[in-house]
Amino acid sequence: MSYQRDNVRRMAGYTPGEQPTDTGVIKLNTNENPWPPSPAVMSALTAITAEALRRYPSPTAASFLAEAARLHGVGADQLVATNGGDELLRLAITTFVPPGAPIGVAEPSYSLYPVLAAIHDSPVQTVELETDWSLPADFASRMNAAGVPLTLLVNPHAPSGRLLDADAIGAIAAALDGVLLVDEAYVDFTDPGHDVVGLIQRHDNLMILRTLSKGYSLAGLRLGYGIGPSALIEPIARKTRDSYSVDAVADALGAAALGDQPAAQASWEAVREERTRVIDALRGRGFAIPDSQANFCLARVPNRAGRSAEALYRGLKDRGILVRHFATPRLADCLRITIGTPEQNNALLSSLDALLTG
Amino acid sequence: MSYQRDNVRRMAGYTPGEQPTDTGVIKLNTNENPWPPSPAVMSALTAITAEALRRYPSPTAASFLAEAARLHGVGADQLVATNGGDELLRLAITTFVPPGAPIGVAEPSYSLYPVLAAIHDSPVQTVELETDWSLPADFASRMNAAGVPLTLLVNPHAPSGRLLDADAIGAIAAALDGVLLVDEAYVDFTDPGHDVVGLIQRHDNLMILRTLSKGYSLAGLRLGYGIGPSALIEPIARKTRDSYSVDAVADALGAAALGDQPAAQASWEAVREERTRVIDALRGRGFAIPDSQANFCLARVPNRAGRSAEALYRGLKDRGILVRHFATPRLADCLRITIGTPEQNNALLSSLDALLTG
Repeated sequence: MSYQRDNVRRMAGYTPGEQPTDTGVIKLNTNENPWPPSPAVMSALTAITAEALRRYPSPTAASFLAEAARLHGVGADQLVATNGGDELLRLAITTFVPPGAPIGVAEPSYSLYPVLAAIHDSPVQTVELETDWSLPADFASRMNAAGVPLTLLVNPHAPSGRLLDADAIGAIAAALDGVLLVDEAYVDFTDPGHDVVGLIQRHDNLMILRTLSKGYSLAGLRLGYGIGPSALIEPIARKTRDSYSVDAVADALGAAALGDQPAAQASWEAVREERTRVIDALRGRGFAIPDSQANFCLARVPNRAGRSAEALYRGLKDRGILVRHFATPRLADCLRITIGTPEQNNALLSSLDALLTG
Repeated sequence: MSYQRDNVRRMAGYTPGEQPTDTGVIKLNTNENPWPPSPAVMSALTAITAEALRRYPSPTAASFLAEAARLHGVGADQLVATNGGDELLRLAITTFVPPGAPIGVAEPSYSLYPVLAAIHDSPVQTVELETDWSLPADFASRMNAAGVPLTLLVNPHAPSGRLLDADAIGAIAAALDGVLLVDEAYVDFTDPGHDVVGLIQRHDNLMILRTLSKGYSLAGLRLGYGIGPSALIEPIARKTRDSYSVDAVADALGAAALGDQPAAQASWEAVREERTRVIDALRGRGFAIPDSQANFCLARVPNRAGRSAEALYRGLKDRGILVRHFATPRLADCLRITIGTPEQNNALLSSLDALLTG
């Protein structure tokens, strides 16, 4: 017999991107920052004591939260640290969505969202993005009509890289009846000036997800956080979050990472420069690519290439370069390509040239 | 307005034990191993590279699972790594319990269990332990009568330290209609010879929780794991678990910790020797203490002490010694005392002497 809940038995799990153990692979498939974390992070690592490992960590990740509060100019009661951004996504569902109530997502979007909904035994209320990956004007009203208590909106959008500005986010928050969780996994790579944190003071239903996985080059550490009004943060921080979900190493290294803004910002600027160069180069080869404010781009393979996106994905993989291909109707002719170092990007471009002319 | 689910709004969160930042405090309140982790763990820490932090970790914590498979003689499909044992408790509920169905626990027990049930919007089906903290003979049949799909049973028992042997665990698993999760957070401190892992080959409803927090002196790292039949493990590992819930540091350090069995076993033996000495000494002072197979003991304060357990807790705290006091009817006259180093235990005993004669 099966002991699983019916909804769990019926569902498929999330498929993570390929994580090869071979460090020789050029890995442009899961949107890591190509530059290493700050030296301050490595110093914090060597400063971890046996005693810090032996004892329970701070239940709130207090060192990290203090740095985050300073960085964003918010109170500690407006922040919660989580085991990667993914934990915050789950916790928002746990905290705000009765099982069975729908979870609102734009489609396409981060493929984990519907998996989390399935685990929770909730349907997904999807709203299809326009052809240019923009949100339809009636996005919020359709979520409200469906009685959605929580909408998950990744911004910059994945997988297109398109950015909604702060005014647009504020308008959606104002229009939604339920909670809006803006998943800012990639926000560090936007051109300077974009900041929606101030909106949490005006919208009681707006929460922001941040992660150190991308901007701070710490995907291996699993550290994210939420920013929001204390009435949204408090039940997560004090009730639904696993006790001690952030370990002592992440607490210390995360504080060091946020504390060294110059190092992080230098990596973001380097990514932005390469993003412009890679997108221009790919467009010059006939790929259709929306403007991206993230550390990846979504490249639609031209028909005249004579190669499907999937064939290019496989050809690149054979050459030791991983990119991401999604076998869904709207994305099947696209590759999502993480922006790497100049050397990695050059290898990508020359391999694509070889495949397209081969 | 409140956006919280009704069950979340109504519930109280888990209260973690006190985690003072002052390292001068003698901390006998949250059952850490008093001895430091293996030197192999510290070597593994210094070997963590910037590249390991930058990239996503192994989705399964493959290095750690390989060591755990070797240690227990089970297959990788019979193991799942989790962000502390607490994540496995939550995942067992998520995977096996439809919201609203009852979760079975003995009372008293780990105070997180009813909190996890409340988050899930499930009632708790409690069965009161006998006066000597043993399970009533009809434990399983009462869970079955209540339609319990998942029973959580900590063994050795917390907070008494009492151990059910493998035959008793097997009999409960055989009698239960639902899943039995045996929470072996403290099992490393049992006298040599106790091992229930072999039972997972005979009972399709039996899963075991292990943690590195206590036995391996790694509470700060947040690493636990489940052992069970693959039909129970697989939906957790591939469906309900957060993607990448175990970070690269925990993967590497956990593997190093399990790989150095002599170091861990030496710490367990040292704890056992001190456990015998501390319990004898406390009994000599009039405390009633059940035999313990864990790294703590439950000391009932004698009436003639003229001090309540709470007063002793406060008096010890004033002297820089933390123990645990639970303000519940059956435990209000007890202290749960973690077994520390000989020096820490001597400090505890002499402080108690001062309080009892003062």
